[in-house]
Amino acid sequence: MEKKFEELKKRLHEIYYLQSVMSVLTWDQNTYLPPAGANARGSHFAVLGKIAHEKQTDPKLGKLIEELIPWTKNLPYDSDEAALVRLAKREYEKAVRLPTPFVAELNEHLAKTYQVWVEARAENQFAKVEPYLEKTLELSRAYAEFFPGYEHIADPLIAESDYGMKASAIRKIFRELREELVPLVEQVTSQPEADLSFLHQHYPKERQLEFSRYIAGRLGLDQKRARIDLSPHPFMIRFSHGDIRITTRVDEQNLADCLFSVIHETGHALYELGIDPSYEGTPLYDGISSGVHESQSRLWENIVGRSRDFWEYFYPQLQAVFPAQLSQVSLDEFYRGINHVKRSLIRTEADELTYNLHVIIRFELELALLEGELRIKDLPEAWRSRYQSDLGVTPPDEKRGVLQDVHWYAGLIGGAFQGYTLGNILSAQFFEAALKAHPDIPNQIKQGNFTTLHDWLKENIYRYGSKYTAEEIVQRATGSSLTIQPYMNYLRKKYKELYRIT
Amino acid sequence: MEKKFEELKKRLHEIYYLQSVMSVLTWDQNTYLPPAGANARGSHFAVLGKIAHEKQTDPKLGKLIEELIPWTKNLPYDSDEAALVRLAKREYEKAVRLPTPFVAELNEHLAKTYQVWVEARAENQFAKVEPYLEKTLELSRAYAEFFPGYEHIADPLIAESDYGMKASAIRKIFRELREELVPLVEQVTSQPEADLSFLHQHYPKERQLEFSRYIAGRLGLDQKRARIDLSPHPFMIRFSHGDIRITTRVDEQNLADCLFSVIHETGHALYELGIDPSYEGTPLYDGISSGVHESQSRLWENIVGRSRDFWEYFYPQLQAVFPAQLSQVSLDEFYRGINHVKRSLIRTEADELTYNLHVIIRFELELALLEGELRIKDLPEAWRSRYQSDLGVTPPDEKRGVLQDVHWYAGLIGGAFQGYTLGNILSAQFFEAALKAHPDIPNQIKQGNFTTLHDWLKENIYRYGSKYTAEEIVQRATGSSLTIQPYMNYLRKKYKELYRIT
Repeated sequence: MEKKFEELKKRLHEIYYLQSVMSVLTWDQNTYLPPAGANARGSHFAVLGKIAHEKQTDPKLGKLIEELIPWTKNLPYDSDEAALVRLAKREYEKAVRLPTPFVAELNEHLAKTYQVWVEARAENQFAKVEPYLEKTLELSRAYAEFFPGYEHIADPLIAESDYGMKASAIRKIFRELREELVPLVEQVTSQPEADLSFLHQHYPKERQLEFSRYIAGRLGLDQKRARIDLSPHPFMIRFSHGDIRITTRVDEQNLADCLFSVIHETGHALYELGIDPSYEGTPLYDGISSGVHESQSRLWENIVGRSRDFWEYFYPQLQAVFPAQLSQVSLDEFYRGINHVKRSLIRTEADELTYNLHVIIRFELELALLEGELRIKDLPEAWRSRYQSDLGVTPPDEKRGVLQDVHWYAGLIGGAFQGYTLGNILSAQFFEAALKAHPDIPNQIKQGNFTTLHDWLKENIYRYGSKYTAEEIVQRATGSSLTIQPYMNYLRKKYKELYRIT
Repeated sequence: MEKKFEELKKRLHEIYYLQSVMSVLTWDQNTYLPPAGANARGSHFAVLGKIAHEKQTDPKLGKLIEELIPWTKNLPYDSDEAALVRLAKREYEKAVRLPTPFVAELNEHLAKTYQVWVEARAENQFAKVEPYLEKTLELSRAYAEFFPGYEHIADPLIAESDYGMKASAIRKIFRELREELVPLVEQVTSQPEADLSFLHQHYPKERQLEFSRYIAGRLGLDQKRARIDLSPHPFMIRFSHGDIRITTRVDEQNLADCLFSVIHETGHALYELGIDPSYEGTPLYDGISSGVHESQSRLWENIVGRSRDFWEYFYPQLQAVFPAQLSQVSLDEFYRGINHVKRSLIRTEADELTYNLHVIIRFELELALLEGELRIKDLPEAWRSRYQSDLGVTPPDEKRGVLQDVHWYAGLIGGAFQGYTLGNILSAQFFEAALKAHPDIPNQIKQGNFTTLHDWLKENIYRYGSKYTAEEIVQRATGSSLTIQPYMNYLRKKYKELYRIT
């Protein structure tokens, strides 16, 4: 049976490295690809995607897994071998449910839709991409139908990024969160607005990059195993245990953009870098879910990187890099500036507090579309009216409205957004558990020392990769299921102090 | 039959794009790969290499080619379809002759040898890599034995990079060349040495890069289809018709290194960029041989880029970029500086004239090794004695001797070097033919205009890709076989003028 297990690992290796080659192609596409190389890049993906899909759905792989299942019954649930077979089974069963022609049609449609969206957004014309989005909705429903027996039609789509989560559960969590968030946002935004102009002076590109790299290194990003490049939209991508790439962008008129993007992506990278190296080459070497992954980017970006403790240590260094811009700005002004709350139109520019309201709107619109309660042609209006009611702002055009995010125009509808807010919630839940185990962490952060926090996260989350489900990881690390209370406690404490609300 | 031809193209497409993905991996490995990513990169290559080899040797591919051969007999020799089937047949037959376990053993051995060579060179210890090189020699002989019926054991190895060339023919050409070169080198190096210190002032990196990029663009490197990055050793690599990458390095104490590397690699890139776009996705989209490829890098680097005409136009611009360093250096001093001839130890740093002597030594040592006339353990001594007799310099150590070039330590012995000198010879032969058709080319170069030359090269060489053999290309473009006279005429004229030899 060990021989069969080795054969399974060999097959999984091939799939893992093919996927990781596709990651190299994706990274290059977003960083260095010359414009005229785009077409051939499509062919690279098509050729590799076809080969990977053949290997993922090879009946010999399925047979091997079936033969190994009885063997794993005698292994402890916690054994890596049992976990690997479990995960391989889940992924194989998913892969074989999707017919190859459907996958090909979907990929072609999404590539085309993305192109049209780029134009539609530039021209501020939802109508241009509307028929494509209609088709995306159809394909999203068709996708779900390959997984019959669901409770809500969005569930198979949500399972793609947050396996184990269901629309009903997320709805409940988001309803609770919204109820507590809305009055807090009310209180905070009724305070006078801060002057943020100091963040929008001229900050030279090279110095921004250098300082961001320095911070990433201090947070634990190992330069032998990771690098930072430029791309239009920041992201993190893994090629292997020893090779993680993050990207950022630099706006010379906005100090916060590059810096917090780098901290955010560093959070994602620390997760992937922290996975047990023995999992390399198997599906265990992967972050477990969108929610848990975002919890790490948001924990490092917001809970650590936008804390007063953090800047107590680093602000003098930042001032030394930008003396002309910052020598007259106090630590408190800076801290308030990077945490300023304001109802706004654009999700990616939103503050920590209103961010979730953007996500919840999108999540609920997705469900309404899938349920047939909302038609694509009514989506722009639904978007406007939800922004008006939930955020008190109305998009003056579609590019600042329904056309702003790439997700629906490059992927399926359903499951695209919930991970961001699940991640925010979990970031505080994990941080609370870490603090309980090590109450000294805030003091260490004040000294620019992140070792204890990093080690706790690695020990309790990172190293497991995809060995456990997200629910199991949350339970093991925090002793309870996902709950919004640590997050609301964190937000209330931070923002009531910041805005001097009693 | 057209349907079978389409099926052939489909299979060749897969192989082409798999190879091109491997090029992406190679490029990344040499430019951006973090050190800890090297092991997994080996796995990327292994997985893709195995799949590509399976596809290259698929008996269904062989059958398809056999079925198409009679059909091509009715097509003109010049038809693209006939050329594609011819080339596919040649490549298939080569691929199936090499047993899969041999290829795997060879790749593993070469990867290991490369690692050991890096250490051996750093420690200046040939003995360390000697047993690996013994094995490489064995494997090189074994490689040749898979292609029985050769005239010289090096022929199958030479055919890898310069298909159609034989050891006997190259020996003859190199003998003639050497006989004419040696007295010329004598004459030139008996003149007083020039003062080159102006080339070794401090030249800031960014400005060197910017000027080199500017020159590449002026020579015709299309920025939408190509880009320039940094790597320890300059190279050119193609991902697709719309995506060519070149790399360079910058030595802030040496103005010539980056600049001429970029012009050299731009020459390679112009060749690949000029291939008929309809060949994309097939083996026709490739440079035809090492010799013809080098002819283009050397034509642009030396015949154009080190000419007085070229700098008559560009030198004032270079002076404007580096006024502190160059305002006191005249055009003639600069021209003499970048063409200074000096017998030296290192091939890659050699001038245009002595460069070929370095190559000829290596080529003859390769033949002697393969013939069994020279043993690996005697190679360092043979190297020293040849440098003493042919170049009048003796390597004081092995890293400046037999350990200097990577070729034998990362590839087979035989066929590694001849392309450089064949390229030099052809560069002048092609340039002479272009001049004959368009005598105004030198005047155009004086005005920074390369269109006529570029168009002629594209029309007569580039666009054909691998449609014709190297011999056919040379015949078609110049009206004769490869001949050293244009090259010797070019060298004599240039260096006698430069050194005022009568």
